[in-house]
Amino acid sequence: MKKIEHIGIAVKDLEQANQLYSTLLNTQPYKEEKVESEGVVTSFFKTGESKIELLAATNENSPIAKYINKRGEGIHHIAFYVDHIEEEIERLQKEGFVLLNEQPKKGADHKKVAFLHPKSANGVLVELCEEIKN
Amino acid sequence: MKKIEHIGIAVKDLEQANQLYSTLLNTQPYKEEKVESEGVVTSFFKTGESKIELLAATNENSPIAKYINKRGEGIHHIAFYVDHIEEEIERLQKEGFVLLNEQPKKGADHKKVAFLHPKSANGVLVELCEEIKN
Repeated sequence: MKKIEHIGIAVKDLEQANQLYSTLLNTQPYKEEKVESEGVVTSFFKTGESKIELLAATNENSPIAKYINKRGEGIHHIAFYVDHIEEEIERLQKEGFVLLNEQPKKGADHKKVAFLHPKSANGVLVELCEEIKN
Repeated sequence: MKKIEHIGIAVKDLEQANQLYSTLLNTQPYKEEKVESEGVVTSFFKTGESKIELLAATNENSPIAKYINKRGEGIHHIAFYVDHIEEEIERLQKEGFVLLNEQPKKGADHKKVAFLHPKSANGVLVELCEEIKN
């Protein structure tokens, strides 16, 4: 784990949250991106070497819609940057961590991603991510 | 806001969580510290330019005990580093953000800290912190 790549925040209304976080962080979002497979639209802000990712659901079956229905808006996950996601998955599985997806999948912001089960990490949804090189 | 200073994670058992996060982050905690006024004992891990702060309650009236009773273990707050906490508080108040403490107070890890009300930030408890210089 090299650094915090981003913090994911589940929000109901991306436009409202974009305005609020622009004021809070004193910077504008640099990108908006839909991830159809996850049913989310995302918005990114830079803060130091890390990012804040706002996530809003695009349909009611989206994991973000379900999360907000259950727990309300708030911090949804922490993503750590890794150099070699397959090696890191293997290392963590050997240590007994449970992966939600054992094979990396395509995430937002041009990344390969994998999630650890929150039960593996004191209730925290941990994402691993690696830049897709090409 | 210059960077993510740390992510605070509420845990029940600091020793168990220290072991788990040492394995997850592949690094040992560099410091443990009690903050008597908040009823917490904390443990810090470095990750890039940021830190992971584990927080366990030292008594049942601690905000961390109440948080875990209500929501379970998990991510408790995001702290952003600021150069001038008083100026940042003033800026945010003018923008309509609600502070939980309008005057900075002493936090863990040699910092002056102030918290925004989660209702101000889409359910996220945001901490501002500035290193105490002396």
